[in-house]
Amino acid sequence: MLEQLKEKVLKANLDLPGYGLVKFTWGNVSAIDRETGLVVIKPSGVEYDNMTAEDLVVVDLDGNIVEGKLRPSSDTPTHLVLYKKFKDIGGIVHTHSPWATIWAQATKSVPAFGTTHADHFYGTIPCTRALNETEIKGQYEEETGNVIVETFKDIDPSQMPGVLVYSHGPFTWGKDADGAVHNAVILEEVCKMAYDTLNLNTNLASIDSNLLDKHFLRKHGANSYYGQTK
Amino acid sequence: MLEQLKEKVLKANLDLPGYGLVKFTWGNVSAIDRETGLVVIKPSGVEYDNMTAEDLVVVDLDGNIVEGKLRPSSDTPTHLVLYKKFKDIGGIVHTHSPWATIWAQATKSVPAFGTTHADHFYGTIPCTRALNETEIKGQYEEETGNVIVETFKDIDPSQMPGVLVYSHGPFTWGKDADGAVHNAVILEEVCKMAYDTLNLNTNLASIDSNLLDKHFLRKHGANSYYGQTK
Amino acid sequence: MLEQLKEKVLKANLDLPGYGLVKFTWGNVSAIDRETGLVVIKPSGVEYDNMTAEDLVVVDLDGNIVEGKLRPSSDTPTHLVLYKKFKDIGGIVHTHSPWATIWAQATKSVPAFGTTHADHFYGTIPCTRALNETEIKGQYEEETGNVIVETFKDIDPSQMPGVLVYSHGPFTWGKDADGAVHNAVILEEVCKMAYDTLNLNTNLASIDSNLLDKHFLRKHGANSYYGQTK
Amino acid sequence: MLEQLKEKVLKANLDLPGYGLVKFTWGNVSAIDRETGLVVIKPSGVEYDNMTAEDLVVVDLDGNIVEGKLRPSSDTPTHLVLYKKFKDIGGIVHTHSPWATIWAQATKSVPAFGTTHADHFYGTIPCTRALNETEIKGQYEEETGNVIVETFKDIDPSQMPGVLVYSHGPFTWGKDADGAVHNAVILEEVCKMAYDTLNLNTNLASIDSNLLDKHFLRKHGANSYYGQTK
Repeated sequence: MLEQLKEKVLKANLDLPGYGLVKFTWGNVSAIDRETGLVVIKPSGVEYDNMTAEDLVVVDLDGNIVEGKLRPSSDTPTHLVLYKKFKDIGGIVHTHSPWATIWAQATKSVPAFGTTHADHFYGTIPCTRALNETEIKGQYEEETGNVIVETFKDIDPSQMPGVLVYSHGPFTWGKDADGAVHNAVILEEVCKMAYDTLNLNTNLASIDSNLLDKHFLRKHGANSYYGQTK
Repeated sequence: MLEQLKEKVLKANLDLPGYGLVKFTWGNVSAIDRETGLVVIKPSGVEYDNMTAEDLVVVDLDGNIVEGKLRPSSDTPTHLVLYKKFKDIGGIVHTHSPWATIWAQATKSVPAFGTTHADHFYGTIPCTRALNETEIKGQYEEETGNVIVETFKDIDPSQMPGVLVYSHGPFTWGKDADGAVHNAVILEEVCKMAYDTLNLNTNLASIDSNLLDKHFLRKHGANSYYGQTK
Repeated sequence: MLEQLKEKVLKANLDLPGYGLVKFTWGNVSAIDRETGLVVIKPSGVEYDNMTAEDLVVVDLDGNIVEGKLRPSSDTPTHLVLYKKFKDIGGIVHTHSPWATIWAQATKSVPAFGTTHADHFYGTIPCTRALNETEIKGQYEEETGNVIVETFKDIDPSQMPGVLVYSHGPFTWGKDADGAVHNAVILEEVCKMAYDTLNLNTNLASIDSNLLDKHFLRKHGANSYYGQTK
Repeated sequence: MLEQLKEKVLKANLDLPGYGLVKFTWGNVSAIDRETGLVVIKPSGVEYDNMTAEDLVVVDLDGNIVEGKLRPSSDTPTHLVLYKKFKDIGGIVHTHSPWATIWAQATKSVPAFGTTHADHFYGTIPCTRALNETEIKGQYEEETGNVIVETFKDIDPSQMPGVLVYSHGPFTWGKDADGAVHNAVILEEVCKMAYDTLNLNTNLASIDSNLLDKHFLRKHGANSYYGQTK
C-alpha cells in the first residue's frame, strides 16, 4: 500500500541526519496521500540506520493504524491536525534541529532580518503560545497541532512553511515530504543567522517590507522569475 | 575475564571521538559487572586509534587491578565512588566535551529550557560545589566522586543521568556503557542549546513543570509511551 | 564557445558547496572573457550536483543570452554592472555564506580587527546603503550592482575584493573565477572571527594602520615578499 | 640533509589542515636539530596539497638558507628568535586558527577557566603587547619574535607552550614539531571554551590555584601520574 509514497517518506526521514538536523531518533517525517486521506509516518523511537520502508506506518486522518507492525511516531496526532487544517500541504517534518530549537526554547518568533529569510518565509516565523496545563495533561500531541493552527489563523501556511512550538522545537511542511525537509534545512540556517545577526545588532528591526515582497515574490507565486520552471 | 563487557567498553570508548566528544585522550568510559563487582575501564592516556580490548583494565571496587598490563584511567577513583553509591548504574562516561565543559567552567547548573532537555534529564542538571583545598590536595579523584554524590543527595541518579563538576567537566552514566555514551551525547547537545537559548532570552526561567513532567514521563517509567518497547 | 572558461566557472561553482559556502542553489559564480566582453555564468536555481559545463550560460555585457539553453542566474544584472565598472576584475562570486550574511543582515561594515583581515582586505569591508523603494521595485538586480559601485566610489576594488549588500549578503571578486572563490572563503572566515572578536572586546577599534599596511602590502603590490612568485 | 626531520616537519604541516587549524596556506611548522643548529621550515605561500619533504627549506639560526629551492616562510625570523631564546623547544607552529586568533584580535590573554586549560597551560595564556610603529616598519617578523620573548620574561616556556600575538594570532611550541601541533590543537580548543565560558559567566575569575597546580602537575614534571610513561 502506498509503496511509492513510503519510499519518498523513507528517503526524507533518512535525509534528516544527512542534513545534520537530528541526532538519534529526534525527528520524524510524514506525507499524505490526499486522494485516500492516508498518512505515511515514521515509527516511534526507531533508529534511522536500520529503518526500511516496511517499518513505516500508515494511518488514517483519525489516527487509526491501517498498515504497519510498529507504533507510529508519538507526534502523529500533531501531524494529523496539520493535514486536516492545512489542506494544501503534502509533507510534514518535526525535528529538534539546534538553531530552530534555540529560538523555540527562547520562546521567540524569528523576524525577517535578510533576503535569505525572505526568499523562503514571507514574514516573521511565528512561535506559538505556551500550552496550558489542561492541554499538556490532556491530548498533548493533538493540542500541539491545535496551537499551531491557532497561531496561523491570520497566516497562510503556503507562504509560511514552518513554525516554532513554544519551549519545544520546529515543525515545517511543504507540498511533499521532500519539500518539508527542504524547508527544515532552510529554517535551521535562517534561525542560525538570525540569532547571530541580532547579537551583532541588538536593535535591528525586520527588513524593509518592499525587500521582503521582492524576494519572496520573485521565487513564489504568479510573478516569480527565479529558477528554470517557468 | 569479562571479555564481552570489555568489547562493549571498547566500543563505547571508541564512540566518544566518533560523536565528537573527545580530542586526543580526553575521555574515558567504564562499565561494571554487578555480579562480580568488577569494573572495566580505559587505560590512562592511551590514544583511541590503537586501543584494543586487551588494553582495558579490570579493577575491583577498592581500586585493585585485577587484570591488565596498563595503568587504569587516572579518573578511576571517581568512577568507583559512583558505582558504589549509585547502585543502579552500569556504565560511566567522563569527557571534556566542549559545551558541557563550558557550563562546568562557568560553574553553572543547566536549567531545563525545552523539551529536548526534559526528554532526558528530569530537571536542572546540577553543577557540583567547588572542591576545597584539602580535597584537591588529598585524594582528589575520589573526592571528585564524593562531591558528585553529595550533589545528588536529593536527586535520583536514574532520573538525572549526568552532572557537571565545578571548573572541570561532565560525567554521565546509564544502565550500561552504551547508555552512558548516549547520555553524554545528549548532555552536550542540551548544553549547547541552553547556552544559546539563554543568550537569546537572558531572563528565561525553566520550562513549565507540567511540560517537564509530560516529556520526561512519556519516555521514562511505568507510564511511558514513546518508542516500541512496550 | 569559451570552453576553457566554462570549465573554470563550473569548477568554481562546484567549489562553493565544497567550501561550505552555499546550501542548495544559494550562490553563483561568473567569469568574463575581457577580449570578447562575454560572461559565463551559472544558470538560475540549478542544483550543483548535476550541473555540467553545458548548463552554463554565456551572456554579453548588455545581458543578451549568446549561448545556453537555460536561464542565467537571476543575479546576472548585478554581475554585469560590476564587470562594466570594475575593469580589472575577471570573476565574481555571490553567496549567502552565513558569517558574511550575518554582517550584511546586521547592516554593518567589518572593521579590520587583525592581520588575517589585513592580509587580504585593505581596510574596513564596506556594507552598502539600503536600496530604496524605487530601486527595489525597479531593476532590482541591476540596482544592487549600482549600489555596490556607489559604495566603492573612494575604494579600489583591487584592494578590497568584496562587499556586503545591506540586508542581503556578500559579493566577492578576483582576477578570475577561482580568485573570486578564494576571496569568498576568506571573507567568510574574516567575518566569523570579527564577529566573535567584537563580542569578546566590545570597544575594539580597527588595528593599527601601520600593521594594516604591513600585512596587506607584504602580500600585494610592488613590494610584496610573501610566497614564491617573485 | 636532515631527511628524518624533514619528514616529521612535513607530516606536522599536513596535520594542520587535518585538525582544521588552517585554511589555504595560513600556517607553518618548523623544527630544529639542536646538534647542528639547523631549522627545517615550510616554504612561503605553498599549498599543503602538493607539498613534499623536498619543498621544505633548511636555514641556520641566522636565517641563511642552507638547503632548498624555495623561499622559507615569511615568518621564519620569528621562529629563529624563539629557537635562540627558548633553548628547550624543538618545534614551533604558527596558525590563524579561529578561536586563538579571536582572542589575539581582541588583544586579551586567556585566563585558566577550567581543568582542560590547567592540564596543558600553567596559568593565563599571555597576549603580547602591540608592536610599535618602529618595530612594524623595521624587521617586523623578527620583532614579532622579540615581543614574544619579552612577554615571557617571567614565564617558563616549557610550562606555557603558546602565546597570542596582539592583533595577529597564536604561536605554539613543543619538544618537537608534533608536540607543537598537539599544543596548537589544545590551544584552539581551550580558547573556544574560554570564550563561551566568559560569555556565560561574565564575572568569572581564573580557577582556584590549587586546582591549577593539581591538574598541571599531575600531567607534567617529576610528580606526574597521568598516562603510561612512568
